[in-house]
Amino acid sequence: MSGDSVRIAIIGSGKMASIHAANVTTTSGARLVSVAGGSGAAALAGRFGAQSMTVDEAFASDSVDAAIIASPNAFHADHTIAAAAAGKAVLVEKPVDLDLARADECLRAVGDAADRVVVAFNRRFDPSFAEVRRRVVTGEIGDVAQLVIVSRDPAPPPLAYVPGSGGLFRDMTIHDLDMARFLVGDITSVVAVGQSLDPDIAALGDYSGAMLTLTAASGAIITIVNSRSNSFGYDQRLEVFGPLGTLAVTNSSEDLIVRSGGSSVDSASRVISHYSDRYRDAYRAEIEHLCAVTRRETPSLSTLADGREALALAVAAGESARTGEVVRL
Amino acid sequence: MSGDSVRIAIIGSGKMASIHAANVTTTSGARLVSVAGGSGAAALAGRFGAQSMTVDEAFASDSVDAAIIASPNAFHADHTIAAAAAGKAVLVEKPVDLDLARADECLRAVGDAADRVVVAFNRRFDPSFAEVRRRVVTGEIGDVAQLVIVSRDPAPPPLAYVPGSGGLFRDMTIHDLDMARFLVGDITSVVAVGQSLDPDIAALGDYSGAMLTLTAASGAIITIVNSRSNSFGYDQRLEVFGPLGTLAVTNSSEDLIVRSGGSSVDSASRVISHYSDRYRDAYRAEIEHLCAVTRRETPSLSTLADGREALALAVAAGESARTGEVVRL
Amino acid sequence: MSGDSVRIAIIGSGKMASIHAANVTTTSGARLVSVAGGSGAAALAGRFGAQSMTVDEAFASDSVDAAIIASPNAFHADHTIAAAAAGKAVLVEKPVDLDLARADECLRAVGDAADRVVVAFNRRFDPSFAEVRRRVVTGEIGDVAQLVIVSRDPAPPPLAYVPGSGGLFRDMTIHDLDMARFLVGDITSVVAVGQSLDPDIAALGDYSGAMLTLTAASGAIITIVNSRSNSFGYDQRLEVFGPLGTLAVTNSSEDLIVRSGGSSVDSASRVISHYSDRYRDAYRAEIEHLCAVTRRETPSLSTLADGREALALAVAAGESARTGEVVRL
Amino acid sequence: MSGDSVRIAIIGSGKMASIHAANVTTTSGARLVSVAGGSGAAALAGRFGAQSMTVDEAFASDSVDAAIIASPNAFHADHTIAAAAAGKAVLVEKPVDLDLARADECLRAVGDAADRVVVAFNRRFDPSFAEVRRRVVTGEIGDVAQLVIVSRDPAPPPLAYVPGSGGLFRDMTIHDLDMARFLVGDITSVVAVGQSLDPDIAALGDYSGAMLTLTAASGAIITIVNSRSNSFGYDQRLEVFGPLGTLAVTNSSEDLIVRSGGSSVDSASRVISHYSDRYRDAYRAEIEHLCAVTRRETPSLSTLADGREALALAVAAGESARTGEVVRL
Repeated sequence: MSGDSVRIAIIGSGKMASIHAANVTTTSGARLVSVAGGSGAAALAGRFGAQSMTVDEAFASDSVDAAIIASPNAFHADHTIAAAAAGKAVLVEKPVDLDLARADECLRAVGDAADRVVVAFNRRFDPSFAEVRRRVVTGEIGDVAQLVIVSRDPAPPPLAYVPGSGGLFRDMTIHDLDMARFLVGDITSVVAVGQSLDPDIAALGDYSGAMLTLTAASGAIITIVNSRSNSFGYDQRLEVFGPLGTLAVTNSSEDLIVRSGGSSVDSASRVISHYSDRYRDAYRAEIEHLCAVTRRETPSLSTLADGREALALAVAAGESARTGEVVRL
Repeated sequence: MSGDSVRIAIIGSGKMASIHAANVTTTSGARLVSVAGGSGAAALAGRFGAQSMTVDEAFASDSVDAAIIASPNAFHADHTIAAAAAGKAVLVEKPVDLDLARADECLRAVGDAADRVVVAFNRRFDPSFAEVRRRVVTGEIGDVAQLVIVSRDPAPPPLAYVPGSGGLFRDMTIHDLDMARFLVGDITSVVAVGQSLDPDIAALGDYSGAMLTLTAASGAIITIVNSRSNSFGYDQRLEVFGPLGTLAVTNSSEDLIVRSGGSSVDSASRVISHYSDRYRDAYRAEIEHLCAVTRRETPSLSTLADGREALALAVAAGESARTGEVVRL
Repeated sequence: MSGDSVRIAIIGSGKMASIHAANVTTTSGARLVSVAGGSGAAALAGRFGAQSMTVDEAFASDSVDAAIIASPNAFHADHTIAAAAAGKAVLVEKPVDLDLARADECLRAVGDAADRVVVAFNRRFDPSFAEVRRRVVTGEIGDVAQLVIVSRDPAPPPLAYVPGSGGLFRDMTIHDLDMARFLVGDITSVVAVGQSLDPDIAALGDYSGAMLTLTAASGAIITIVNSRSNSFGYDQRLEVFGPLGTLAVTNSSEDLIVRSGGSSVDSASRVISHYSDRYRDAYRAEIEHLCAVTRRETPSLSTLADGREALALAVAAGESARTGEVVRL
Repeated sequence: MSGDSVRIAIIGSGKMASIHAANVTTTSGARLVSVAGGSGAAALAGRFGAQSMTVDEAFASDSVDAAIIASPNAFHADHTIAAAAAGKAVLVEKPVDLDLARADECLRAVGDAADRVVVAFNRRFDPSFAEVRRRVVTGEIGDVAQLVIVSRDPAPPPLAYVPGSGGLFRDMTIHDLDMARFLVGDITSVVAVGQSLDPDIAALGDYSGAMLTLTAASGAIITIVNSRSNSFGYDQRLEVFGPLGTLAVTNSSEDLIVRSGGSSVDSASRVISHYSDRYRDAYRAEIEHLCAVTRRETPSLSTLADGREALALAVAAGESARTGEVVRL
């Protein structure tokens, strides 16, 4: 690091790269020094007064303290390994890889540098989910007994996205599986029921909805409800239940307006429909956490091992949905 | 009283008489012995296994411990005076009278029996409003600093009702004025602005809406918002504000259903639109309080003097709206 | 029937018998003629001006049009069969029986009279749950895709109650299983995970919590979350999810007060903690439905076959929790 | 303008100057070129890569298209007049001046340039308040009949701030008075009741709370409730009532967590306690509006005349509170 600022290179130039670039620019203590890779790198670098370089140059540069890996999914593991090997702190977009063996390889290759690698499970950095965890850890509701997660996308992804997505469990449910681990710890069994109401998605061999039940080593039980579509926006809720109370995370509306009239009252506005709006604060918090990790003020709070475990649960869920049997882990 | 049950006569046979008759019947410790007065008295008595008698007979009867005065408004004062003179405990529907001088006369005539006369300000007996008062009295929010009351009827009364109603302030606002006294005590000034948006009501010389500001002897200030109509039912809310917190009473929906979809979420069902549904529990509590007063377990918690003061405030509000000046009391 | 009123005998004199007696008395078009069976029958009959008789007398009486079977569980099937054989319309408390074979026998014995037998699944008669079903049937949210039911008791039953209760699934979950059928129709598979956090209940071989996933013939999937205890009262919610919207039933608070102050705002009052308060309106609606069935205005809307199916699902859930396998029906 | 970007100078270097500087930097189509005035100007300019200059230089510069006046209140009018005279578009913090005569002078001096001057009434730019206005204008609730505004600060200002603040009405209520005009148009009368519960503020001759009733030329009536303190944060709500519905703006919580347990349920987290968090999006929208005004795409939506009228209402409120009489405008 030079002076106070963490000098950051962004690998990739797509949508997430662009979100990260803006957040790095306005995070005090962070500085965007380069954007590398992708046809849009030069433009993105130019917009925020950073340099454009190749990925290899970025990892080799002495002026780069940390790398944000927002390249295409297939490169996540390689870029993470290379950046870590070059001594950079790393924020890598999920998934590290869709293949469990490859995720294990990445974990081994990174080795001792793992505590400086942050997997961008955005919900861990969301102020509400993070605060729920903090309150659970303080014992506010006693030992967690049950957890209910409802997670529904506003609309199905483009059909072209589906085949390479890894399927519902590895693409979407993985966030909820990580959240389950984040709030109740190790999981010992999974049973999943897939749902095929969307014929286009079914034709591609994937599910459009699912319900899962997990058991945790602690004795807690967890249910996850997923759907690829939802009539009123991006539905992201959960409820942690303990002997002393229940903590819920509700949806966020687009504004603070409530309408009453005719046959319905207290109608809030449509909930936020895009993940980039819903998790706006989480993306900023990821940058702040990356800076703290770079400065060695804290180990990573969302590790490669966490990414690996969530993937293993997603794989188990797929197996359970296929066989109709409970899978023990 | 004979045995355990308070023996009750109902004077009148209209809508409120009928509500009271059913509640007396299902209140343990109360017994409906007679219905007196009005063309429907015999039918009402018959339906609940009670006797039909004349009003004089009811007041003279040794088998009657308490009288519920639900006769037409013009008779309330006379019937209250006669029942009290006969040694009965009394529940009298509001208003005791629309005329302040006549209310004063009634107060004098009843004299020492006043602590056995209950004026049926239904909101004092509503579980939510009563509980707010209890919590205010315990000091939960500190000394009340401000009170905001919103009170809107679902629809204007029949036009034929308006001329004899006493006008918006004495007919409708009187409930809110009593609530202000119930929660913050004596009032020292009133300023009122009347509103004439409904041309039919305006043609009869009355207001269809109003806003009032009161100051209390305690230093608290109060605002009351009234309307003769509301698009979504019977709007009855308040908010008591103190240095340690705010207690609000919200509306009650017709059911527990919440809808989300399209551009609005968390839409509750229409609020209750009829006072007899909204105050169903309050009417039952009035009977229980009447029984306790009859048994001398408690003095009246809604006295003739309270009725007189609320009327005086309504008269003052009318004067303020007419003159555009603050009225000191 | 004599004249307009449905003449009703109540079999049993416990808590539910007493609730039904009060509701019959205040339901217009119904008349309580007798209470039969149990040591408290004479007292209960006396309180509401009804006769006390033996169960046989009640079934044999020409003055009885309908019977409410609120006797101990072990007698439900016998009393239902006898009452139906005597030509009475019947409202029978759940469970018809805890044994599936016995429930089947009852179904066969009642035969064609089944459409005049109402099983008292109270939630079917709750205004909110009934209205959700009506709105689902009208197509308001499209074809139901997912259903989430959360059902938690305020506190565990007395331990002495547990051994004869039939276990969590047949005693408690059965209501949720019936609700699933009520809202989405036939169920084709069940997988259940039981939870043993309460050591006293575990020592008796029962679960204190559970999560179930059901699949419906329609393609819908359902999750049920149960707990024998809850920190804030009687937690009874559900959420029906369709392509056009989501309908939820929320909890009902003890009053309409909302507190704001310090670190939390908009705090509602504790939810209702007793089933007899939460389902007060449902019990009244059961009596009204019984009257309509007696008058042959409608077939039973909660049949013996419904009772049998819910029991079969509860048995399947028990098997799944024991074996860790999905049970197909 | 050079190329696409609006080139902006900020006059002042205090808290609001710093907020505006960050927002200009991240608003696409805007560019911060200079910071002028105040001891912190050089540092603020340096942090965002802008130049530091004198106020005169900024107004004289050809590289400045628009000026944001965030200097001390006493300079607002002078700086606005000078910037407008130099042909700059202007965003000026409120108040333009605390003195009505001086505000009138500023209005005259700016003359025809007034439609390029934006007064920073932040609530007009808040997404929720702006959207309520848009929906009111479309006629969604019919002609506005009543408006209730509750506005309470989390804590009193430092006592040293009070004497120069202009008093409660000109310092705090002015926002609510502008909101009344924003939503219902011209005001014809004001009656105000001041409250002196805070002895320190009272000793300085100011009020710590107030209630006002306004009448609008349209026939609508408005009530405003103010307090200098509130137990649970920054309380900023309103409710617009029309014949077809009611639109309310509620408070925003610090996060999306809802707690249930013990004697209270559905407790949301504390509301936002600082205006800079509550109006974060409004400040961004102000910059976007300034850019559109600079590009002559729209006239100012929050004009000097609006600022003048709100001030006149605040002065009238002060007079009413002092005299106890309704003030006609």
